[in-house]
Amino acid sequence: TALHLREDNARFILLALVMIVYMLTGASVFMLLEQDNERVEKDKYSKYLKSFKDKYPNVSDHDLTDLLRVHADAQALGYVGYRRPRWDFSGSFYFVGTVVSTIGFGMTTPQTLAGRIVLIFYGFLGCAGAILFFNLFLERIITFLAYVLRAIHERDLRRKGLINESRDSTGRRSSQTSEEDNSDAWKDNWKPSVYWVMLILFVGAVIVACCASAMYYPVENWSYFDAIYFCFVTFATIGFGDYVVSQRDDYENVHWYRFGNFIFIVLGCCCIYSLFNVTSIVIKQFLNFLIKKLNCKCRR
Amino acid sequence: TALHLREDNARFILLALVMIVYMLTGASVFMLLEQDNERVEKDKYSKYLKSFKDKYPNVSDHDLTDLLRVHADAQALGYVGYRRPRWDFSGSFYFVGTVVSTIGFGMTTPQTLAGRIVLIFYGFLGCAGAILFFNLFLERIITFLAYVLRAIHERDLRRKGLINESRDSTGRRSSQTSEEDNSDAWKDNWKPSVYWVMLILFVGAVIVACCASAMYYPVENWSYFDAIYFCFVTFATIGFGDYVVSQRDDYENVHWYRFGNFIFIVLGCCCIYSLFNVTSIVIKQFLNFLIKKLNCKCRR
Ligand SMILES: [K+]
Ligand SMILES: [K+]
Repeated sequence: TALHLREDNARFILLALVMIVYMLTGASVFMLLEQDNERVEKDKYSKYLKSFKDKYPNVSDHDLTDLLRVHADAQALGYVGYRRPRWDFSGSFYFVGTVVSTIGFGMTTPQTLAGRIVLIFYGFLGCAGAILFFNLFLERIITFLAYVLRAIHERDLRRKGLINESRDSTGRRSSQTSEEDNSDAWKDNWKPSVYWVMLILFVGAVIVACCASAMYYPVENWSYFDAIYFCFVTFATIGFGDYVVSQRDDYENVHWYRFGNFIFIVLGCCCIYSLFNVTSIVIKQFLNFLIKKLNCKCRR
Repeated sequence: TALHLREDNARFILLALVMIVYMLTGASVFMLLEQDNERVEKDKYSKYLKSFKDKYPNVSDHDLTDLLRVHADAQALGYVGYRRPRWDFSGSFYFVGTVVSTIGFGMTTPQTLAGRIVLIFYGFLGCAGAILFFNLFLERIITFLAYVLRAIHERDLRRKGLINESRDSTGRRSSQTSEEDNSDAWKDNWKPSVYWVMLILFVGAVIVACCASAMYYPVENWSYFDAIYFCFVTFATIGFGDYVVSQRDDYENVHWYRFGNFIFIVLGCCCIYSLFNVTSIVIKQFLNFLIKKLNCKCRR
């Protein structure tokens, strides 16, 4: 058990190191991709502001700075333009959804002290509940997939004549017991299923994202790829808030759009959460493989 | 097993219903808390804009609207005022951290097409890795706590004379086997530990949040409660982005501040993720209890 414990700790530390390296690499990549654009955009903004000041020299700098600050804050809070109200019931429900799912777009945030205090307590239970919901969804999906995959597997075996009728009944019985402890469905005793589950969840997530994007992009006037980007950022519960759907106040069929939005976000978050979890199991297996390799080398 | 399956499905549906009710309730509460403030602030902004237009009648509406839009976008992207660069290495690293942890403040978002495409692939692996990291952290913490709590438990028993020396050695052996299958540490065979683990994680999270807030609030010029609110929103990986630390470009000891920030966010996210997971187990037990109650009533 001492070795076992040391291996657990080694895996944890190895993963921490891998994550740090992964993040440093990512930081370099994104820096290279984005840095030039930042410089260009910053210059463009400065020039724009300067041209405005040149055109209207009578506007005092102090007044303009104040106005711009007030306006930017107001825009961030959704007070500007043809935006839906933030805190009517449907807006508040949307907000609560972003809290509980931990998406947190930030298009709506509590501004009162009471709202912020309530948020901490409300979010605590809500986020825990949502994690349970995602976990139970994953459990249900795995049970279902294990059942289907096993049925296909057995049919293949039967076709090849490896199972005769009498064996078939025991096969069925064993598939029923596997349903009982479904959490073991992807453990080492039946390896392909992790990858199968991962593939099927991946396909499911892609289908949900494509369908959702097909709904979002014409309604929001985004490009199709922007909608896909929005879907990934949302379903992964990253929720940057740079693109947020259902924010204008002039949609046709607004209730259907909001309902579709709700269904797509729930489905998408469930799929991607499950996919991340299954992927994390594969990463864990890879780490175990690495540790075994390293161990062998050390012993030599 | 048919009953067992039906119970699993019933639990999933029951949780979905509970979550919907919880969200509807929350939506009402936040609506009541925030709606008045929204109206007041909207009026304030309109009046402010109007007074500016009255003061400077020569500024054309079209030019002003354009400037305000450009400025608000620039502010959201961090081009305005004494802000740190977004896409130098440390800024990019911060960005990557918000992606991988799924906090997603949104203070920095990829603006180029290439950046967005890379984000989807990079985020996929990164988020899965981070979920594994949080899960391994939880596993390590539970192993550690199970070890400590069992040691205290045994000391208590020994003090009361319930274990003599010869039993003590077997007790120790049994505690070692419990380390081996640490995932069972909080299962039904030793009930108090779920609540103990929950309490200890809660205390841990509160301590991390209080220490982090003590660092943040003087440096960022926030109130202490705002810093606590920021900590909850961040550690729960909600990440609204209404408060984001380490955004100015004029901190003293900036490297130490960034390092402390990194450590606090990692620790805080680990603690709150673990706490949410343990809480979700307690919620699951409560749902099981509810289902048992409902079953008894149906059978009568
Ligand atoms: K967010
Ligand atoms: K988030």
